[in-house]
Amino acid sequence: MNITIFNEGRDEKRKPEVLKVYPNTIGGALKEIVEEMEDATLLTIGSLYDEECGLTEEILEQTDVLIYWSHGGNREFPDAIAARIHEHVLRGMGFIVLHSAIGCKAFKSLMGTSCTFRYQHDVTEKVICCNKTHPIAEGIEDRFELPMEESYGEYMDIPKPDDVIFLGWFDNGEACRSGCTFTRGYGKIFMFQPGHETTPTFYHPQIKQIIKNACRWANPARKAEKAFNCIPL
Amino acid sequence: MNITIFNEGRDEKRKPEVLKVYPNTIGGALKEIVEEMEDATLLTIGSLYDEECGLTEEILEQTDVLIYWSHGGNREFPDAIAARIHEHVLRGMGFIVLHSAIGCKAFKSLMGTSCTFRYQHDVTEKVICCNKTHPIAEGIEDRFELPMEESYGEYMDIPKPDDVIFLGWFDNGEACRSGCTFTRGYGKIFMFQPGHETTPTFYHPQIKQIIKNACRWANPARKAEKAFNCIPL
Amino acid sequence: MNITIFNEGRDEKRKPEVLKVYPNTIGGALKEIVEEMEDATLLTIGSLYDEECGLTEEILEQTDVLIYWSHGGNREFPDAIAARIHEHVLRGMGFIVLHSAIGCKAFKSLMGTSCTFRYQHDVTEKVICCNKTHPIAEGIEDRFELPMEESYGEYMDIPKPDDVIFLGWFDNGEACRSGCTFTRGYGKIFMFQPGHETTPTFYHPQIKQIIKNACRWANPARKAEKAFNCIPL
Amino acid sequence: MNITIFNEGRDEKRKPEVLKVYPNTIGGALKEIVEEMEDATLLTIGSLYDEECGLTEEILEQTDVLIYWSHGGNREFPDAIAARIHEHVLRGMGFIVLHSAIGCKAFKSLMGTSCTFRYQHDVTEKVICCNKTHPIAEGIEDRFELPMEESYGEYMDIPKPDDVIFLGWFDNGEACRSGCTFTRGYGKIFMFQPGHETTPTFYHPQIKQIIKNACRWANPARKAEKAFNCIPL
Repeated sequence: MNITIFNEGRDEKRKPEVLKVYPNTIGGALKEIVEEMEDATLLTIGSLYDEECGLTEEILEQTDVLIYWSHGGNREFPDAIAARIHEHVLRGMGFIVLHSAIGCKAFKSLMGTSCTFRYQHDVTEKVICCNKTHPIAEGIEDRFELPMEESYGEYMDIPKPDDVIFLGWFDNGEACRSGCTFTRGYGKIFMFQPGHETTPTFYHPQIKQIIKNACRWANPARKAEKAFNCIPL
Repeated sequence: MNITIFNEGRDEKRKPEVLKVYPNTIGGALKEIVEEMEDATLLTIGSLYDEECGLTEEILEQTDVLIYWSHGGNREFPDAIAARIHEHVLRGMGFIVLHSAIGCKAFKSLMGTSCTFRYQHDVTEKVICCNKTHPIAEGIEDRFELPMEESYGEYMDIPKPDDVIFLGWFDNGEACRSGCTFTRGYGKIFMFQPGHETTPTFYHPQIKQIIKNACRWANPARKAEKAFNCIPL
Repeated sequence: MNITIFNEGRDEKRKPEVLKVYPNTIGGALKEIVEEMEDATLLTIGSLYDEECGLTEEILEQTDVLIYWSHGGNREFPDAIAARIHEHVLRGMGFIVLHSAIGCKAFKSLMGTSCTFRYQHDVTEKVICCNKTHPIAEGIEDRFELPMEESYGEYMDIPKPDDVIFLGWFDNGEACRSGCTFTRGYGKIFMFQPGHETTPTFYHPQIKQIIKNACRWANPARKAEKAFNCIPL
Repeated sequence: MNITIFNEGRDEKRKPEVLKVYPNTIGGALKEIVEEMEDATLLTIGSLYDEECGLTEEILEQTDVLIYWSHGGNREFPDAIAARIHEHVLRGMGFIVLHSAIGCKAFKSLMGTSCTFRYQHDVTEKVICCNKTHPIAEGIEDRFELPMEESYGEYMDIPKPDDVIFLGWFDNGEACRSGCTFTRGYGKIFMFQPGHETTPTFYHPQIKQIIKNACRWANPARKAEKAFNCIPL
């Protein structure tokens, strides 16, 4: 399985506290997760500051699963690269959408909704599994705590998920559908709420396991060689 | 729309505090809700202590929606009456399953699962709407608080709901799928977690509105005259 | 309920046989359906040849349900008007997507998929109800025949529907998910496969009833006054 | 993965034509499929005529996936064994329900519905894939033909499936949801319509592949050691 990581890279430049938590950047933390998977090869780590964001046609053509973290730069992400991601998802590429990447262009265009929500920083989260048989929940505890996270709250403007695997409980009185799957074309998509830039979420063993599980689940059994078209008989 | 209420009636006999909160019994509180619906006629209120639990074939035949509250008497409920409810749901009768009625025989046999969950008394709940377009959510706030309730927690052993309309957030760190719909045969089912016997939940205007909405949603557009059978062509 | 019809109007100009079947245009046939609804007011009938396609901001602001038929002009439909429809659906406007409108820009962007399928003209269809309790199936026969239609076939590249209400059976060996619902934002969407431009489908009493049912089902209980945004607490 | 087969065995005794098509019985044909799986061990093949139908507590305790074919003996199957299957499915055992096993007691009690349908013998079927990304569809053609089968038709009285993977098209004008998945407790269930006793369906390479895929998909990632119970905190 070939995995590509996109880490926006903007917060690392603007917020010194990000590099305190993630000295090798958020992309570096995600890279460690992929490197622990014996069945995965990391192709590249792109960012907003790389040519074509590192997500060239050649890279995406070889990518089985794209892990994507982004935040404040969602609006400046190039439309053409977002459309390219969208197209590759329809053709089968798995898409792991982490935290505020819920607002990225490619996810929004795949969902067809605004992908908006309520949010608040610096709260304690409990991730609660409500779908124990899903492959993404394999080996995951019934519930685990993230001492410091950002709450996302309902109403989240997302389409009805194929499966809701995790609920997020937050000590500020919020709750949300925290881990959700969607299918678009041949592509499997996992949206996961935790992962604020100044909290060590991507070091948490359960979070790491969930991301690994999600990559394996989203790894396409089949890909379409080109875009779908209507077919006259 | 003809509505029948089943209120087990056991807690009213055993726990004096129930009658402090519900001097006219829980069934009486549910009756008030039905009586506020201009489009509904209340047929009867059955209990565990009535002949055939008040749910005779004649009553169920005329019932469009059955509102059902039960608790500690779930196991002693007669199998034959549970089977009768099950059959009428398949033929179209709506079924509103309140609080610990989640463990009643008819709901369990309709679900095919154990309908078990974690629980704890005396917590504060927030009911959070995550499905704003569903008819059961019409006129309901994005979130409202029940100062004292019983938490139900995941893993709840229910089948994947048709729709999850409400999440329950609890101040003891629990969260659950609090308001869920299911369809079985021609019958629409709404399972709703709030409604502990010693808290004034069924007086809460939002809870009352949700139950009214649920009755209208579950009111069958079509009923089957008899049980379904395989049909040779 | 305020209803707006969009009938592309292109086939009426190019194919004389369309006006033989629909002397008042397809839009005229849809208009008759709306006029038979006592609970509906027809606002306007737009076409590809009207200014802003007849779908101005003012019209859509007042529209509760948009009935949309289009075909060969899907690609030339203005992007800005498609985006306007999309936005109004998210804010609550119902959207009834008939036949080859499945390929229109607004439906595709709401779905996030290519909305492609296999097709063949001049076949016999049976519309088969597989979801008898859905409001759109109210009063509809278990199955009915359309002697001449266009088959749509799987794999249809649509997201998993909220509900599949009708299957389409075709005498050329094809079958498809013919009537499907989706929710996006506050908007309810019904996609329905029958309705080829040279067959009298929109005169069929069952088809007319399905479209009326769909309008009533999609009529929004709540609308958002403006586009959704993330909300900091 | 430990697989157990249940083949009712009644038709082999009553209809000579069954043994013409399946000289080693239907169970023998299913055994061949399992034996072609390098990752599976066949525990046993039970029948209606074996003690405890061959489905003892010890066998089911070790079984990861139960493949089940039955027909005219559904009503005489022992209630206690059906309840045992039900319980093991909730605890994680995969359950592959073939053809008229749709009417067997364990499947009906897991579904909560009558599991009835329309049917007709001696028709041609096309199995059409409408969910290309599902693991059960891996390596399966978009459509394939079974020259002689039994049609099942809608309305099939089953709950809304988690996923509809295959549609069945039949040359007698019928169509149905032919291949469907459900989850109950920790158990994954695949219901598959083809497999009439006098047609060589279980020799068809695509059918064999679907059954193998289904076993792998239903193989539980986790099992519950005992029945679920409500848990006070």
